Amino acid sequence: MRRFVIGQAKNLIDQTRRRQRHHKSLRLLSLLAASDSALVLSSPRLFSSSSDMSGSGSDSSSSSLPVTLDSLNPKVLKCEYAVRGEIVNIAQVKAINFVLSCVLLKYETVLLILLSSPTLQKLQEDLKINKDAYPFDEIIYCNIGNPQSLGQQPITFFREVLALCSHTALLDESATHGLFSSDSIDRAWKILDQIPGKATGAYSHSQGIKGLRDAIAAGIEARDGFPADPNDIFMTDGASPGVHMMMQLLISSEKDGILCPIPQYPLYSASIALHGGSLVPYYLDEASGWGLEISELKKQLEDARSKGITVRALAVINPGNPTGQVLAEENQREIVDFCKKEGLVLLADEVYQENVYVPDKKFHSFKKVARSMGYGENDVCLVSFQSISKGYYGECGKRGGYMEVTGFTSDVRAQIYKLASVNLCSNISGQILASLVMSPPKPGDDSYESYIAEKEGILSSLAKRAKTLEEALNKLEGVTCNRAEGAMYLFPCINLPQKAIAAAEAAKTAPDAFYCKRLLNATGIVVVPGSGFRQVPGTWHFRCTILPQEEKIPAIVNRLTEFHKNFMDEFRN
Amino acid sequence: MRRFVIGQAKNLIDQTRRRQRHHKSLRLLSLLAASDSALVLSSPRLFSSSSDMSGSGSDSSSSSLPVTLDSLNPKVLKCEYAVRGEIVNIAQVKAINFVLSCVLLKYETVLLILLSSPTLQKLQEDLKINKDAYPFDEIIYCNIGNPQSLGQQPITFFREVLALCSHTALLDESATHGLFSSDSIDRAWKILDQIPGKATGAYSHSQGIKGLRDAIAAGIEARDGFPADPNDIFMTDGASPGVHMMMQLLISSEKDGILCPIPQYPLYSASIALHGGSLVPYYLDEASGWGLEISELKKQLEDARSKGITVRALAVINPGNPTGQVLAEENQREIVDFCKKEGLVLLADEVYQENVYVPDKKFHSFKKVARSMGYGENDVCLVSFQSISKGYYGECGKRGGYMEVTGFTSDVRAQIYKLASVNLCSNISGQILASLVMSPPKPGDDSYESYIAEKEGILSSLAKRAKTLEEALNKLEGVTCNRAEGAMYLFPCINLPQKAIAAAEAAKTAPDAFYCKRLLNATGIVVVPGSGFRQVPGTWHFRCTILPQEEKIPAIVNRLTEFHKNFMDEFRN
Repeated sequence: MRRFVIGQAKNLIDQTRRRQRHHKSLRLLSLLAASDSALVLSSPRLFSSSSDMSGSGSDSSSSSLPVTLDSLNPKVLKCEYAVRGEIVNIAQVKAINFVLSCVLLKYETVLLILLSSPTLQKLQEDLKINKDAYPFDEIIYCNIGNPQSLGQQPITFFREVLALCSHTALLDESATHGLFSSDSIDRAWKILDQIPGKATGAYSHSQGIKGLRDAIAAGIEARDGFPADPNDIFMTDGASPGVHMMMQLLISSEKDGILCPIPQYPLYSASIALHGGSLVPYYLDEASGWGLEISELKKQLEDARSKGITVRALAVINPGNPTGQVLAEENQREIVDFCKKEGLVLLADEVYQENVYVPDKKFHSFKKVARSMGYGENDVCLVSFQSISKGYYGECGKRGGYMEVTGFTSDVRAQIYKLASVNLCSNISGQILASLVMSPPKPGDDSYESYIAEKEGILSSLAKRAKTLEEALNKLEGVTCNRAEGAMYLFPCINLPQKAIAAAEAAKTAPDAFYCKRLLNATGIVVVPGSGFRQVPGTWHFRCTILPQEEKIPAIVNRLTEFHKNFMDEFRN
Repeated sequence: MRRFVIGQAKNLIDQTRRRQRHHKSLRLLSLLAASDSALVLSSPRLFSSSSDMSGSGSDSSSSSLPVTLDSLNPKVLKCEYAVRGEIVNIAQVKAINFVLSCVLLKYETVLLILLSSPTLQKLQEDLKINKDAYPFDEIIYCNIGNPQSLGQQPITFFREVLALCSHTALLDESATHGLFSSDSIDRAWKILDQIPGKATGAYSHSQGIKGLRDAIAAGIEARDGFPADPNDIFMTDGASPGVHMMMQLLISSEKDGILCPIPQYPLYSASIALHGGSLVPYYLDEASGWGLEISELKKQLEDARSKGITVRALAVINPGNPTGQVLAEENQREIVDFCKKEGLVLLADEVYQENVYVPDKKFHSFKKVARSMGYGENDVCLVSFQSISKGYYGECGKRGGYMEVTGFTSDVRAQIYKLASVNLCSNISGQILASLVMSPPKPGDDSYESYIAEKEGILSSLAKRAKTLEEALNKLEGVTCNRAEGAMYLFPCINLPQKAIAAAEAAKTAPDAFYCKRLLNATGIVVVPGSGFRQVPGTWHFRCTILPQEEKIPAIVNRLTEFHKNFMDEFRN
């Protein structure tokens, strides 16, 4: 099998050698094949980022060790292996598709693994040493919604408060007043006063510090115009743990289904797989700007029920990831009514609530929509997820967020509380930041003007980048791209020539992954194939973030345009 | 049923009214009963910390809501309900045992829920308003290992570095040199240089920032005298997520067992229940200072196997929680050999590695012990958990930690990596602190002397408190208490009179919970009943932390001594 795999990799290289216009990009494939041979020969750790790939890593043939893949929790394995029913051997994947190997592994974890892909890191390192071996100078990461990694600066006020709360002795020093804005000092005091004993190093209430939840509830009220209860807030280390908690709560077996959009952010499919449930897909309508049709929801719900699946919840991502659409309020009302009528929990992923770029759309929280329809606490089960990782703040590494849980009975809430307690509490720095993003400086505050300038600067630049990239993509032969109304992504459809699809099939790779790999090889631009998010069968997409700094966008457009032209020239039917 | 429960509560109050010496403590029980009536009448949110208990909380009788207890994941429910096979209704528990209700709920979550127990918070609030109604002035929390909540100060150097990394603009200001130690500034620069783009707000590698893992690996090497590989380090938000990750990996069904010490920290039983596995208990030998006997491990392993359970791992907590013992190196060697021979993963909870208080004991990591026996990477599957929440640093709220994973095959490691990726990465502040605790200031550094003074001050004071409390406990009638050799706890055995056991039975509460509740009512001292950790059937214990500040210890000893005498006088056979 391994010999077969190496053979296939060599064939691929040979084919590519014949075809490639930029012979420099061979460097990449050679690197892969060499590295893969090392893998096959010495079985290094698959995900080791050590440069010593022939190191002391243990071998899967070590029969003396008690843990083997066969003995692991099959749900953990399944989270990775269910690519359209096809089992893909990891080694095989590595042999054929080194750089984007993750793409082939599985829908569910593709994004998550790409995030810190050791292969990309290896490429990055090799690029430093062997500059001349590549047809590009730098890797441009358009794969992950990780703004600060691409140079976006944190909001000064937020970081001032965080620093003061981290080292509270600063608050007693007069020199501090020369270094910090006066409202950051006031805010730090206020936050410390809300923490028992001012102890930012102590475990908090499992739902988060009460005073910080008060600030978040006040922020939700100001946003929605409807009351919010701090006791409904569960603070979390980013939005992901909240999603896992709800999946853990709702899923008992594969008979429990969760309606998820396709395309979708793979956190949902990964979490459903890990908890052993069934993902019930509903397709967003690309033709209507990734519209969410109630008729499609009904159809998929009935289909799932006919298979004996009890659908427990509907997940909606608004603004959309990877699709970037912003739902219209009227559409949201229909969705709320659908959940109410069908007895579904509405899981509202609202982490991009600050990221709306078009004047004709506005973010409305599902809670506001439900309340404005007259539905109260006892009418709709609604969980809204928010994160400090997105918005204009982009504090991904700080791992903060919350979920607002409404409409559950007291006994069910007690179970949610228990799950929150099992990991004691979310991190306090993240909790502080979550309270700050929901209660930023106000007019008259010392920081207000600079805060607004920073915020507007980031958001207006993101809007410009989205527009420029969208226009460029729509100029490409066979590519159509909906507007990025919100979030941080474009999700263009690529109408690939039959010859390209055949070449991808020959290389045992998905056609969009084939395209993305070629794009990377030729330009250094990293995007994620649509297969990572699922898509209507037979259509091909990729997700491209709008996050590279503005001055880099023209170069990205040029490189992408040139690559695409060459690709189409090579494969045009 | 509810009426029955209220009746029982009233009976309990009446009985207590007749018995109590301090009539003031009736206030507490009345508060409970009143609050419980409100519960039964208006079904408030069980775990709401709102002071308005008759508020807008949804009712479990709301038939229009789709989620009920019956439809939840039974593993989530089971995590709470398996009290010695007895199902305890939450409302019933609340009626009878308000303050320590959690104790009766379940072994698994007792500690976790007690951490932020709304009932204790309510008591705390009522104590402020109705000072004269209680026989004590303040609640003394001896229930949770949460040092900074009790006034322990964070290590200055750690917080300086954290503040500088939080607000990096400080590093460009000359005034900063007057406010921070020079080595904290150097260290902050060093850390920032290890983070791509110096972006502390970006997602990191899923295992944690490579440079920080290098520092941790170097710290492990310095500690053990054996090599450590940064690629073996998985940084986590505290130790708990690491434990969950390993349980998720190893447990497929109830046929998979994990050997756990009894008494044990309830994280283990909670995590095993959540993942649907079987806890295979092994009893620590109280008579030999909570010794870990290999014969007991063998016996329980064989017993589990005879029931068709595949035992996958052995969890060892060293230093022990709640028992405070430190394992002897020779004992650790036997444990390593046992795991090797029986094909078990060794899950080594080593979060108290800095907390050793007696000169005749020393902490040895299991990895050091295994390597010193000549076992290499391919011989033993070993996971060591470390946390920034314990030690002399006690940074619980910052949620940092790591696990060092050795001896797994590359394909299994890939699965661990995937699980780590699903939540993207642990929080960067926690990552920075984890690197600092494993690479603190060195001789010659600007902070070194003050750092050592702070560290030694905390550890020597903890040792003194442990000794004082241990001696006081051993002076009590019918109480025996092993040494707190390490960790943060004492776990005395209370030989309760038959009359007290009968009174507890009449009150439908565990005898040790009965004792602890009476202790709280009379003195304001909160400890956790042994039932929360499991214990040899028929024996009764409680866990008492050594964390209240030193000046409070004499008062605790006095109050405890007086209470115990009165209790024994009341119930002596």
